[in-house]
Amino acid sequence: MGNGFMGSILRVDLSSGSLDVLDVDEEVARKYLGGKGYSVYLLWQYLKEYEKEGLSARDVDPLGEENVLIFGTGPATGVAGFPEAGRYHVMALRSPLTGSIASANSGGKWGPYLKFAGFDMIVIEGASSEPVYLEIIDGVAELRKASDLWGRSVFDTTAILERRYEEKVSVACIGPAGENLVNYAAIMNDYHRAAGRTGVGAVMGSKMLKAIVVGGSFRPEIAKPDEFKEATKSALDKIKQNPVTGEGLPKYGTAVLVNVINESGALPYKNWQGAYHEKANDISGETMAEKYLDRNHACWGCSIACGRATSVKKGPWQVLNSEGPEYESIWSLGNDTGVIDLEAIIKANHLCDELGLDTISMGSAIACAMELYERGKLTLEDTQGIEYNFGNPVALVDGVWKTAYRIGVGKYLALGSKRMAEIFGLDVSMSVKGLEMPAYDPRGIKGIGLNYATANRGGCHVTGYTVSPEIIGLPEKIDPLTYEGKAQWVKVFQDFTSTVNSTVNCLFTTFALGADDYASLLSAVTGWDMGAEDILTIGERIYNLERLIINKFGFNGKDDTLPRRLFEDPVPEGPTKGQVVSKEDFEKMKEEYYRLRGWVNGVPTEEKLKELGIV
Amino acid sequence: MGNGFMGSILRVDLSSGSLDVLDVDEEVARKYLGGKGYSVYLLWQYLKEYEKEGLSARDVDPLGEENVLIFGTGPATGVAGFPEAGRYHVMALRSPLTGSIASANSGGKWGPYLKFAGFDMIVIEGASSEPVYLEIIDGVAELRKASDLWGRSVFDTTAILERRYEEKVSVACIGPAGENLVNYAAIMNDYHRAAGRTGVGAVMGSKMLKAIVVGGSFRPEIAKPDEFKEATKSALDKIKQNPVTGEGLPKYGTAVLVNVINESGALPYKNWQGAYHEKANDISGETMAEKYLDRNHACWGCSIACGRATSVKKGPWQVLNSEGPEYESIWSLGNDTGVIDLEAIIKANHLCDELGLDTISMGSAIACAMELYERGKLTLEDTQGIEYNFGNPVALVDGVWKTAYRIGVGKYLALGSKRMAEIFGLDVSMSVKGLEMPAYDPRGIKGIGLNYATANRGGCHVTGYTVSPEIIGLPEKIDPLTYEGKAQWVKVFQDFTSTVNSTVNCLFTTFALGADDYASLLSAVTGWDMGAEDILTIGERIYNLERLIINKFGFNGKDDTLPRRLFEDPVPEGPTKGQVVSKEDFEKMKEEYYRLRGWVNGVPTEEKLKELGIV
Repeated sequence: MGNGFMGSILRVDLSSGSLDVLDVDEEVARKYLGGKGYSVYLLWQYLKEYEKEGLSARDVDPLGEENVLIFGTGPATGVAGFPEAGRYHVMALRSPLTGSIASANSGGKWGPYLKFAGFDMIVIEGASSEPVYLEIIDGVAELRKASDLWGRSVFDTTAILERRYEEKVSVACIGPAGENLVNYAAIMNDYHRAAGRTGVGAVMGSKMLKAIVVGGSFRPEIAKPDEFKEATKSALDKIKQNPVTGEGLPKYGTAVLVNVINESGALPYKNWQGAYHEKANDISGETMAEKYLDRNHACWGCSIACGRATSVKKGPWQVLNSEGPEYESIWSLGNDTGVIDLEAIIKANHLCDELGLDTISMGSAIACAMELYERGKLTLEDTQGIEYNFGNPVALVDGVWKTAYRIGVGKYLALGSKRMAEIFGLDVSMSVKGLEMPAYDPRGIKGIGLNYATANRGGCHVTGYTVSPEIIGLPEKIDPLTYEGKAQWVKVFQDFTSTVNSTVNCLFTTFALGADDYASLLSAVTGWDMGAEDILTIGERIYNLERLIINKFGFNGKDDTLPRRLFEDPVPEGPTKGQVVSKEDFEKMKEEYYRLRGWVNGVPTEEKLKELGIV
Repeated sequence: MGNGFMGSILRVDLSSGSLDVLDVDEEVARKYLGGKGYSVYLLWQYLKEYEKEGLSARDVDPLGEENVLIFGTGPATGVAGFPEAGRYHVMALRSPLTGSIASANSGGKWGPYLKFAGFDMIVIEGASSEPVYLEIIDGVAELRKASDLWGRSVFDTTAILERRYEEKVSVACIGPAGENLVNYAAIMNDYHRAAGRTGVGAVMGSKMLKAIVVGGSFRPEIAKPDEFKEATKSALDKIKQNPVTGEGLPKYGTAVLVNVINESGALPYKNWQGAYHEKANDISGETMAEKYLDRNHACWGCSIACGRATSVKKGPWQVLNSEGPEYESIWSLGNDTGVIDLEAIIKANHLCDELGLDTISMGSAIACAMELYERGKLTLEDTQGIEYNFGNPVALVDGVWKTAYRIGVGKYLALGSKRMAEIFGLDVSMSVKGLEMPAYDPRGIKGIGLNYATANRGGCHVTGYTVSPEIIGLPEKIDPLTYEGKAQWVKVFQDFTSTVNSTVNCLFTTFALGADDYASLLSAVTGWDMGAEDILTIGERIYNLERLIINKFGFNGKDDTLPRRLFEDPVPEGPTKGQVVSKEDFEKMKEEYYRLRGWVNGVPTEEKLKELGIV
């Protein structure tokens, strides 16, 4: 197409086994770009179609064949020279974990390789009655039997398929957790990269789709090579000179944040009973670099290389040839469970990759189980002989693999913290809309709390990462403890991020690049003249349409809130000692946010939808 | 029937879902007793029937619906006062691990409870197309759906079913290993008791039979109460006064043997590269009693109580509420893998129980993998980042659960050491007929080597436990290092044991009781007048008929042998330093054994069969 897109969407009906190809609709692409935006547009069409057929959105079973799973790249993905465009976005109509929309994003090389195979997106409908995998090589797609792969780990499956295609492909697959329909199973690509959140791996498992193999020699073409050269040079310079993308991330990976957030009094500890721990440095990126780092590891075409190749050379948690853990994983598997033991964390993280589990929800579910255990709800009989006290690395490591196979205590953990806590009758799930919140405590960072509450997919930081201004000071430093003005930041970050996830590009670029940089880059790639305002408007359109979808599932203002603990239990110690999220201030912030969004009680108004050109 | 039998055999055809009841044939019972003997008789009938239908024995697929699985008790099982009669025997026509007959034996309370439910035996034919379990309560049997149990661990399954029947039952089931058709999956009953060897759990898994629940208020009736009272009093006295059953086993469990056998230079070390280890006491029954024993644990009606309730209170291998490990498990999971770490062994043993794996084959397979790794055949890529050096407890613990789920290196381990070693092209499987040998090195105990070689199910110690005279000195002490006269001991032990396993009773009674004691006890129970010679003849008959079956599968004299290492590699250190099994002496011993048996090249002669009244 000469606009960064390959121009083709592969549609696969797993129920019938039929495949067909749709053209990318340029009108849609101009309004929603690719990746997340185009996927949201398609999901909305499915929902309308279902309603016409008499299937209400609320009756869509996340693990039924009516769920739709979409893999999407955008105009930037796989474009040589585009800074850090090695990612893809995955969405499904409905998440088994939350009942809201499912959405996840991953790096590695799979996204670019999908485009090299000739397609921008893959839409998966229906469900197979036997294990299959999808092969897409040089424009030709086929479904193949995967009975020999079913039951295999992520690493086995990837290695077997890579060899079968002589290493010329990239493999995205599910592990045992996805096959066993664990509510927060991930889709894994290139061994260690995860489209982790909201259980997209379980959706894939419910369809009996084990893997998608992509590769080929197609390359995306761009519209304006000269402008592109100029825009990328400027962007790369900014990325290089930026303290986060130029130094912090390359040097210590995302785990550089452990000490930063802990010292801000916002690193949740022991299922959010605290927000600070004096020994957090034991599990920091700095400590990891000193003791367990083998080398850095970059996604396709990335200049930052925040990935970590790591190993634990000996001891009970030995793992060689591992990757990560990322900041979020260190926090969830370590700080949140009280396991201040980087070796056990690396092991647990490795098992999450091997078995295909979202580390944030996994660690959070274990932390929740530990609180249930310490409060006498979960018993030693439930855990079958393992103490679920906070800080027990055995519970952590055993809990991970038992979750993937849903045995023992894993049968509770696999449900996610919300349903598990309901079963045991104690309100200690630290989740929003059922999605476990990540590693920033709103009691110490007020803006991120509003983002968690209003994020369409549930408790999520990358929907609108206000931590950047509130803590890191990018693009400017604001006070994390105030409520004023945060609504505007949340809205802008959510909109901008929606565009980035539709580009599809790495969110970390936004530490260094603003909407104007994205406008220059995307205008050069697509040939469509876009300004900074267009970039934000596209994101706002995507965000509003996504909100319309979740409204259909019954989510509205009542669900745009935070767990009780954050309002009621003050941080017990550390820099934010005594802080809660003030219910009154939170509600004010939320009202301000709704006003800025043009929403009433979490629902977009007709006026706003018209303004954005959403049908 | 008034002869210890309940008189009824339940036959279940899982393919059609039909159940019927057969009478126990007294004529057969007089010739073969119950348990193993009656099962061998039935399996022989099936084989003859199959041949009539045109299915050759060699074409019987161990995991096909043509395999037959039999659970058997005998006239002593569940008889109050009969010393240690809490066991049952399991057989299948063919083992997935060996291709020979499958045979295993277990304690707990399941055997007696089957009789209390009204049946002596259960014969399982065919295969279900969906997970089911079998319920037998007070004479009424039904198949029930088990889709909610499929995928569950042994502990979960047992607990769920016990609760469903208000704790009035006993549960035998398979774990994930059996479902996943691991070649040496066990059938587990009463949580920690295993019918472990030859993969009977995989046979059960292939039939999609998850569990058998038994219970009721029937009780076996005996023929001669007065004689019985006298016989049991005498037997119990002997058991109490015997140094092994009266002191060693109650005090230290079976693990009392660790130091004894190590000091005899016959405790195989690092996949049988050695036969002695100076730190074996670190993993002995004495050390277990000192550090990890919570209390003793007895099977139904047992006065010995050799079972161990154990726990590891903290550290990376924490396990609370565990049982065992037995001597064999300590050896295979510990000494044979070089993991001289009782905590890691307890953990690995616990996982074998939880997942339903035979500990002997599991540990031996890991030991074999370690030798393959150290010799450069198995790579770090195969093990996905875990060093398989001897002595690494991580490889041990990870290896166990990965085997149950057949992921990573587990996909090789699950095949058993013989097939794994073949794949990697190195002759280091320490097995006979594909069954991994247990914890007594024939280089230091010559008689047990002849027993391993000639045991119908493959490398097995409990087929004819000549360790009793050779090492322990019961019923008399003989020199373990000589070959002379061993053939006769092997034959007698194999025959007597066959009777014990058909009684069905605990083999440990034979430390204290001889054929004459069994004659008195069984005569009183059955009312059939039996002398010591009859006891041995019944056993010989069983053993010969079992041999006829394995001949049909193609096993004969060429398979009655030992692994190359035992003939060629001398013991490197310890009390038996320099010892091998002399090939020449072994062959002489074997010829003598065949002569005593009336066999030619491992095949019973017509004359012998006529003499024994085998049709």
